[in-house]
Amino acid sequence: MMAENTIAAIATAPGEAGIGIVRLSGEKSIHILDKIFKPTKKNSIRDYEPRRITHGKIIDPDTQKIVDEVLVTYMKGPYTYTAEDVVEINCHGGMVPVKNILDLVLRQGAFMAERGEFTKRAFLNGRIDLSQAEAVMDIIKAKTSTGFDVALNQLEGSLSNEVKAIRHDLLEVLAHITVNIDFPDDDIEELTYDKLEQDSIKILEKIDKLLDTAHTGKILKEGLNTVIIGKPNVGKSSLMNALLKESRAIVTDVPGTTRDIIEEIISVKGIPLRITDTAGIRETEDVVEKIGVERSKESFNKADLVIFILNASETLSIEDKEIMDKLQHKETIVLMNKTDLPNVIDLDELKELLPGKSIIPISVKENKGLDLLEDKIVNMVYEGKVQRHEDSLVTNARHKRALEVGKTSMEEGIEAIRSGLALDFVEVDIKNCWESLGEITGDTTSEDMLDRIFSSFCIGK
Amino acid sequence: MMAENTIAAIATAPGEAGIGIVRLSGEKSIHILDKIFKPTKKNSIRDYEPRRITHGKIIDPDTQKIVDEVLVTYMKGPYTYTAEDVVEINCHGGMVPVKNILDLVLRQGAFMAERGEFTKRAFLNGRIDLSQAEAVMDIIKAKTSTGFDVALNQLEGSLSNEVKAIRHDLLEVLAHITVNIDFPDDDIEELTYDKLEQDSIKILEKIDKLLDTAHTGKILKEGLNTVIIGKPNVGKSSLMNALLKESRAIVTDVPGTTRDIIEEIISVKGIPLRITDTAGIRETEDVVEKIGVERSKESFNKADLVIFILNASETLSIEDKEIMDKLQHKETIVLMNKTDLPNVIDLDELKELLPGKSIIPISVKENKGLDLLEDKIVNMVYEGKVQRHEDSLVTNARHKRALEVGKTSMEEGIEAIRSGLALDFVEVDIKNCWESLGEITGDTTSEDMLDRIFSSFCIGK
Repeated sequence: MMAENTIAAIATAPGEAGIGIVRLSGEKSIHILDKIFKPTKKNSIRDYEPRRITHGKIIDPDTQKIVDEVLVTYMKGPYTYTAEDVVEINCHGGMVPVKNILDLVLRQGAFMAERGEFTKRAFLNGRIDLSQAEAVMDIIKAKTSTGFDVALNQLEGSLSNEVKAIRHDLLEVLAHITVNIDFPDDDIEELTYDKLEQDSIKILEKIDKLLDTAHTGKILKEGLNTVIIGKPNVGKSSLMNALLKESRAIVTDVPGTTRDIIEEIISVKGIPLRITDTAGIRETEDVVEKIGVERSKESFNKADLVIFILNASETLSIEDKEIMDKLQHKETIVLMNKTDLPNVIDLDELKELLPGKSIIPISVKENKGLDLLEDKIVNMVYEGKVQRHEDSLVTNARHKRALEVGKTSMEEGIEAIRSGLALDFVEVDIKNCWESLGEITGDTTSEDMLDRIFSSFCIGK
Repeated sequence: MMAENTIAAIATAPGEAGIGIVRLSGEKSIHILDKIFKPTKKNSIRDYEPRRITHGKIIDPDTQKIVDEVLVTYMKGPYTYTAEDVVEINCHGGMVPVKNILDLVLRQGAFMAERGEFTKRAFLNGRIDLSQAEAVMDIIKAKTSTGFDVALNQLEGSLSNEVKAIRHDLLEVLAHITVNIDFPDDDIEELTYDKLEQDSIKILEKIDKLLDTAHTGKILKEGLNTVIIGKPNVGKSSLMNALLKESRAIVTDVPGTTRDIIEEIISVKGIPLRITDTAGIRETEDVVEKIGVERSKESFNKADLVIFILNASETLSIEDKEIMDKLQHKETIVLMNKTDLPNVIDLDELKELLPGKSIIPISVKENKGLDLLEDKIVNMVYEGKVQRHEDSLVTNARHKRALEVGKTSMEEGIEAIRSGLALDFVEVDIKNCWESLGEITGDTTSEDMLDRIFSSFCIGK
């Protein structure tokens, strides 16, 4: 299947860099390249084999002006990213060359690619399924190596395979039901309600197993919203620095946020912690003033994790106790910092004041106890389960919803079986489940849904 | 010549994008690629020809973990960017994959490339000369198509060729001098002082011709610092918008500037105008307050061009006259705006108040007269000369200095000839000129100078 239009976009990030790439996909790609490219050694790009990097110049056919010196490659579908003919023009980095080359290919008949349109074509042309397409953008947006690994796993088809296996099981059950409905008197193996129930429960268990990964998956993909609180000079800023130093994170500004909202991403053993209100934490006088009470409250309220730091060398103050009052319903790790100094805090009193909370003695100064904090966070995110590299995780809210809807249908189906309802009723529930799960792989996804999914992509992917 | 180390860097701009590239150069490039790359179809990258885009996976040889799904190519020197063996690993965009692949190749023995080191190697290996190497960074940093074209011209060798031609002439003169010094009584064509003077003057004229382009060249490369002034509501903001609309500019934030300093780049027929204090111009109340008097003064003082807007439908105010007093020593274009309204300003009085300044009646509202403004700016930048596409321009301050030093040597040489000094004295001057010009192409450039030049490059180029 070839889309009608040939599309083009800048595939590299904007900015001053060594290399920029303009990419085309569609049946006119090579034709357009041929019109604007003069190889250094031969006459035409058609004198070269596909997939060969060829040096030459992009020349505007209308003005004969040199647009840039480039390396180009063309690849023939279907063994390409989009499964269509693809052209990559590898030009100088910087805004002018990529933009001028893009302008030129658009003038020669290419259409500006929409967000995610290359990947959408890969999906529509059947090269990847929808969960794999979504993984592409997760890969690009990943903030830590672990988040990246989970997305790469999904791209490689781990989630798809599990969902497909469940859908295969569902189809088998449906086939049996159909046979029993259509030929109730025939000599075909009769489906007893018992067997039907057993098979359905097995499927439900598989769905549950996948859903169980959604908590961890979401955090690995989106990060754990974390707030570090405590009185001034208790060591919040030192803790941040210590975590940053330990971290093998790719720490970046979060795109889309303005500079006013300060958020830092720290990788704790691959788990991205999104620490907001760093400015407040860092106690920069003037910034603190700007941040204001409202925003701090908001950060606190939406936090998945609160790290509360106390000074172990001081008795608990009224301020400390005020903070403690608010922690009741929040997932909290309490750090007793400054254990390098004589310990003054009464641990028993503390345990009483903070029932059910983990209390970890640390000394940021002496780099003691940080590993305990990290282990605690890891344990919290993975819920005590060991994650193997090949495990697939549900990271996507859309997938989670589809699984939940599927689960409900399955439960209703099992209920119908147990109530001894007619097979037609059971069939409807099982079929609903099969359809819900199909949304994950894109087998049963609406056009609207597709548009929504790909609109969150970047242009050029 | 192969450098000892194999270097690696991320060659694309950071950010979320479709494609990221990690590039290697040096004799171990292919060996390193072989260790970490598993092609989809064959066993090893060595089973593929050079320059062929090959699909496969980057796998960490220590952990057997998949790092990313990639397209790779290797190219054998000397027909590569650096003239060494080059590898390009084309991976998913986003920070994690490029960073993890870079980390991996560094662990496998590559060294992190310094700023501009790929281009420096291209220079050291003799593929391009120094002015061409410098053009690479000008291309990347270009803000308008014209600035880009000038840099591309330089990369193609236009400036190099002219400088080389002059140096060739200088060498001929030097050869004649040497012969006449060494064999004064021989039967060789005797170099008369007259001929020597004529040849030297011709060379001086060529240097002068190049130096004449430096004014235009600098502006096309760096932009024309422009300030738009005038009373409130005179149309400064509308003018900015009109110019932006007309402009086919690539308008970007200027890298390295903080968000506090507001500067916009507008392309007027390919000439980049750097308009500072836009915030002030846009009359945003709170921003104006922040900007402060000092910075406005500074912008005004360093401006290459002042665009002064008057309201033609009002009599001149004290405020207008105060501004006029400051314009005396500034290159100024006076715009009489709002010619759509009844004209009240006395043009003769205005001409008297602003002697020697260009006065252009416009109506931003009716889009009248903007072309005159643009022509005026073009004329000012090109100093009335028509620029042909193939003309080479001196855009680089370093090149300009080298030419100026060469010019002085040449003038001193001509002076020595005219004074009838001994040929040895003349020889010294001519040789100095030859050496100065050699700094442009890098034939006589010191190690220090090279370091300084390439340190202004981006990493990965």
